Amino acid sequence: MVNWKLVSDRKKGQVNNSIPEEWQVPGISLDMESSGFLNTSDYLDTILPPNEKALTTLSASELASRIHRGELSSYKVCYAFCHRAALAHQILNCCTEIFFDKALKRAKELDNIFEVTKTTVGPLHGIPVSLKDQINLPELDSAIGYVALSGKKSTSKSLIANVLEEMGAVFYVKTTVPTAMIASETVSNLHGYTWNAINLNFTSGGSSGGEGALIGAGGSVLGVGTDIAGSIRIPASFQGLYGLKPSYGRIPYMNVKNSYAGQEIMPSVIGPMARSLADLEMFARAIVSCETWNIDPNIVPIPWRDMSFLAKRKLRLGFLWDDHLMKPHPPITRALEETFNALKFHGHEIVQWDFPYQKDVLDLAKEVLGADGGHEVKLLCEEGGEPILDCLKYAFPSLNDESSSISMGVNEWWKLAEKKNFLKEKFLEHWRETANATSSGEEIDAIISPVWPFAGFEAHAIPFDPINYTVPINLLDCTSVVLPVTTVDVTVDKKEHDYIPTNEDDASVKDYYDLARFDKMPVCIQVVCKRMEEEKALAISSAVLDCLKGTFK
Amino acid sequence: MVNWKLVSDRKKGQVNNSIPEEWQVPGISLDMESSGFLNTSDYLDTILPPNEKALTTLSASELASRIHRGELSSYKVCYAFCHRAALAHQILNCCTEIFFDKALKRAKELDNIFEVTKTTVGPLHGIPVSLKDQINLPELDSAIGYVALSGKKSTSKSLIANVLEEMGAVFYVKTTVPTAMIASETVSNLHGYTWNAINLNFTSGGSSGGEGALIGAGGSVLGVGTDIAGSIRIPASFQGLYGLKPSYGRIPYMNVKNSYAGQEIMPSVIGPMARSLADLEMFARAIVSCETWNIDPNIVPIPWRDMSFLAKRKLRLGFLWDDHLMKPHPPITRALEETFNALKFHGHEIVQWDFPYQKDVLDLAKEVLGADGGHEVKLLCEEGGEPILDCLKYAFPSLNDESSSISMGVNEWWKLAEKKNFLKEKFLEHWRETANATSSGEEIDAIISPVWPFAGFEAHAIPFDPINYTVPINLLDCTSVVLPVTTVDVTVDKKEHDYIPTNEDDASVKDYYDLARFDKMPVCIQVVCKRMEEEKALAISSAVLDCLKGTFK
Repeated sequence: MVNWKLVSDRKKGQVNNSIPEEWQVPGISLDMESSGFLNTSDYLDTILPPNEKALTTLSASELASRIHRGELSSYKVCYAFCHRAALAHQILNCCTEIFFDKALKRAKELDNIFEVTKTTVGPLHGIPVSLKDQINLPELDSAIGYVALSGKKSTSKSLIANVLEEMGAVFYVKTTVPTAMIASETVSNLHGYTWNAINLNFTSGGSSGGEGALIGAGGSVLGVGTDIAGSIRIPASFQGLYGLKPSYGRIPYMNVKNSYAGQEIMPSVIGPMARSLADLEMFARAIVSCETWNIDPNIVPIPWRDMSFLAKRKLRLGFLWDDHLMKPHPPITRALEETFNALKFHGHEIVQWDFPYQKDVLDLAKEVLGADGGHEVKLLCEEGGEPILDCLKYAFPSLNDESSSISMGVNEWWKLAEKKNFLKEKFLEHWRETANATSSGEEIDAIISPVWPFAGFEAHAIPFDPINYTVPINLLDCTSVVLPVTTVDVTVDKKEHDYIPTNEDDASVKDYYDLARFDKMPVCIQVVCKRMEEEKALAISSAVLDCLKGTFK
Repeated sequence: MVNWKLVSDRKKGQVNNSIPEEWQVPGISLDMESSGFLNTSDYLDTILPPNEKALTTLSASELASRIHRGELSSYKVCYAFCHRAALAHQILNCCTEIFFDKALKRAKELDNIFEVTKTTVGPLHGIPVSLKDQINLPELDSAIGYVALSGKKSTSKSLIANVLEEMGAVFYVKTTVPTAMIASETVSNLHGYTWNAINLNFTSGGSSGGEGALIGAGGSVLGVGTDIAGSIRIPASFQGLYGLKPSYGRIPYMNVKNSYAGQEIMPSVIGPMARSLADLEMFARAIVSCETWNIDPNIVPIPWRDMSFLAKRKLRLGFLWDDHLMKPHPPITRALEETFNALKFHGHEIVQWDFPYQKDVLDLAKEVLGADGGHEVKLLCEEGGEPILDCLKYAFPSLNDESSSISMGVNEWWKLAEKKNFLKEKFLEHWRETANATSSGEEIDAIISPVWPFAGFEAHAIPFDPINYTVPINLLDCTSVVLPVTTVDVTVDKKEHDYIPTNEDDASVKDYYDLARFDKMPVCIQVVCKRMEEEKALAISSAVLDCLKGTFK
């Protein structure tokens, strides 16, 4: 039997030792707390050299143009992000692999190329990109939170890493995930707990929680996450970031380590997380332009499409206020209201979105996630000699009961696939029917929806997974963009005392609303488009943001 | 227990009784044989009125333009095809549903519309289209060869039927399939045996065997088939027709009755069969132009793409001569050679195609097809009280042994999906590597391959399924166009006596080569392109045909 604590201690030691000594700050979390900070990003701004602070607050797009114009060196940018990531990790515990030396060497090489050729190698020249632990890089682990997989170094590179590097990206860290990546809280026996960059009492979210924390703290400007039930969108939302959950087959997942790799009814997808919407588009456009359909058989040959036609007319948007199964907290509803008002003010048309099969979609998604009764999780945890964490039991209730962990048979699985197709058909039908509700008689362009029913949560506080507003998007294979709208404000967001919950989880959600707890936490919304409409979701998100800022013409 | 023979007799009686009395010809098969004919099409040409014979030998594209120019009425066209189909069915046993009255009424309506509006309703205005039994039409069975499903009328219409009708198509028959549609021979306890239109001793092929027979006999000009292991391509090949097997997600399969509906590792696809290549393109272009991705969630939003760039340069083609597991008979190899020579003569570049994982692909495809050990087939046959036919046991060996019919579990199924992805990646890699073998350093455009290792077979003659050249294309989700190249010629196609078979099935295939048996049987080849390249496969097929005809410029 493996002693999982030894493996874990060794791994954590390795990660910390890979931080250069001059950047190691023992007791940094205590320093931060004694300085009165809960927000890691704010705290880091106070202790970093001003030039590094300045560099690490720029967007990836801004960095890319300054590097392209010769105003910034890749090395300087890389150095600043390595330093900030090193500090962020020591506070938030968000990295699984740290390799600054390789990154700085690569940045130097890119600078040399630029000096000789007077041009950049691609649209991401010199941009530091953080990678969720799943993405394979040679000679590094892709342990995805499992003790059993620690120390099993990859021998190859994920296609997306190849493509990003070809376009000039610089890798410097890989980031934490919950064991098996089926949880909305990032915690594992291997790496421990990853904290929220905005509030140290909160979870960073999951499963791309390491990305959420690192980008939220400014230790990364652009990161790669994955999403099977909300794993890009939840941490983006909990840290007030932008995230793109594409449809399956648009951004290459080839040779990325995964749980349940052959589960194709509701496959995990890969996408960017960032602090600016433009950065999501820069990422997606660059990847799609590489025509990876000639390499990854699951990529569909659709080039990046122009969406300028959308700017020439008013938008038509469906609003999902509440799924009637889990009522969002008041700050979430306020974020939707503010978006609604801003869109209305600018003349866009809004209809109600109430999909009659919402509960069926949610139930089916949970059946799909739990189809093997936790068989794979159990095997790998046993192999590593580690106990199964509670959060995994939310996805696999049968893990609570040793005897009942039974995989379903293939005929039952095929029935789930049939049901999925039925629900996707109904979804498109409902979407088409919105044409009856708009003044133009045309269907809606997108749905505006909550991401999470509340503005994040404290460590271990929620004994279930409120994925009501995220996982249906996965089952339906829609495109979704998460964008920050507001923050919780104790002076305006009051508890709704007279609401009568419709079920037990809904009651728990209501109970969890304690105003002081959430103050200043970010609130994000989702802009959801149909399958394979990444360009459209991004363009509409941009219009929504402009409305919110009042700059839309 | 249902008495399956009663159900079958009743169903066969219904089908025959739905033929107008004046078109019923008792003993027509005997008449044909006593007149010395094996080829139904040739025979029908001798007994039909000259104007009907003339109409039923035109292509769908020709019919469409003549109707569009007002030179032909939809009614006349419909009448001619109904009559010819009625006769063809009485010889070949190729229809499951016959509804000429509705068809003629619809054709009349289309003529009225044309008279009033002076234009056609769509590109298929007045074109009779035959439909494989799976396609749901209200008030008709979609029994897919099962006794248990006979008499269970559909209440709705398949999306593809809706779309075809919107474009002006006229439905008049549905066509036979083997039970469960997992066989290369069209036979069921419900409908009996469907014979080959070119040679009455031969099978029509399967599973779209009814389509193959009917189109081969001239009783249909354009039909809709489906293909999970070769089911469009095999009957097309056995009758010397054109067939398009698209990738999954290009032509809508929504609300089409199916076996194993949720089996999505290697899903069945739907596509056209016809007597001219132009008709396949007319069909596919028309369907794609309807943007069914707004209705069918599995359709990918790719509009029909222009391929005229291909005419401006020489083509690069890979040739798959032999998979080294099942050597094609000499006439098949000769068809490839003639194609090779014609392409070479016209300056196109040819490289060898030898995919190292060909056997792995074939083996995996068979594992996928047999994943439930015949569970669904067994249940439905039991429900209908019918015995399981031998041909179903080729796909499900465990049906031979009552005790071993065990479905696999979901974890095992997911492993198959992973393996499929691995093989598809290797396939694309091998495709890219062809760039090393071409003079331009560019990869090949398409692969030229056999369809079936021999030119059809006689009823019940082959106790296994030689799907070596068809099913890998399904697993890899490539596009394939089948086109006729030549016919078997006793004067040139000699037995290759010194070939030493590599396995038992290969030996059976060699043994089956008896020259006299195959004389005059058609020989087709496949033009295989990558996933979602329907336009390209059709354009290259057209170029190949031009080379074969010597008219390519």
